[in-house]
Amino acid sequence: MTEINDYFMEQAVNIAKMSNNDIPVGAVLVKNNEIIAKACNQKEKLQQATKHAEIIVIEEASKKFNNWRLEDCTLYVTLEPCPMCAWAILQARIKNIFFGSYDMLYGAFGSKINLCTLINSKTNIKGGILEEKCNNILDDYFKKMRKNDN
Amino acid sequence: MTEINDYFMEQAVNIAKMSNNDIPVGAVLVKNNEIIAKACNQKEKLQQATKHAEIIVIEEASKKFNNWRLEDCTLYVTLEPCPMCAWAILQARIKNIFFGSYDMLYGAFGSKINLCTLINSKTNIKGGILEEKCNNILDDYFKKMRKNDN
Repeated sequence: MTEINDYFMEQAVNIAKMSNNDIPVGAVLVKNNEIIAKACNQKEKLQQATKHAEIIVIEEASKKFNNWRLEDCTLYVTLEPCPMCAWAILQARIKNIFFGSYDMLYGAFGSKINLCTLINSKTNIKGGILEEKCNNILDDYFKKMRKNDN
Repeated sequence: MTEINDYFMEQAVNIAKMSNNDIPVGAVLVKNNEIIAKACNQKEKLQQATKHAEIIVIEEASKKFNNWRLEDCTLYVTLEPCPMCAWAILQARIKNIFFGSYDMLYGAFGSKINLCTLINSKTNIKGGILEEKCNNILDDYFKKMRKNDN
């Protein structure tokens, strides 16, 4: 399992790096070991507060299957989901969630709050997949932002 | 203020009644006393777990203004927002939120959890606007659902 998880998280990392002016977060949605949808955060690009990477892949997959239920899907995302995305993931009934970096400020799968406690959730959640790589993308972005501010 | 709030919540109630097979929730987004966007919950209709009434009006307004920041807007919604919608509302920086029914199961503006406590939020939130009317729409819907189940 570790190799497969690393492989798909690597894809999420690659997508995260494509988030031009947006905070670099990448997500990949997988079904039967096949990538169904992938996206980076596009809040600034699309000027939509809702367009985090996770929301985009959920919407793409539901459109593809014409079904809001994504029970058989596994989500890989480079950063622990915020409350908006975490609740969307739980609502879409995604069964397995793997994230990279922990978000101590807004992480809603355990780090700041745990939205799973609100429902009788059968969701499997594991953080820290390729954690260092995922942390590095964010660190590099914020370093660059601070440099531009000076 | 009460009259204005009742007026706009009445519009949200009217929209809620248009949610065919979906749980009837309506939302109206207002700027300078003018309705910018209105929508009902369309999760089943669009087969998208993300398409709650609040998300739809936020996305419509951001598209209209080409801006994810909706600071000067006021949201009227017939049911207390869930964690997904509450976080989207806070992310979009909507300043004033009025809701009708309290949601003791999933309400994320105080009834079950309060997501405002996660950020230094200047958002004004008030529940219980036209509460009885808003409760009635939901009660009628669930009564009808139970009747169809028998």
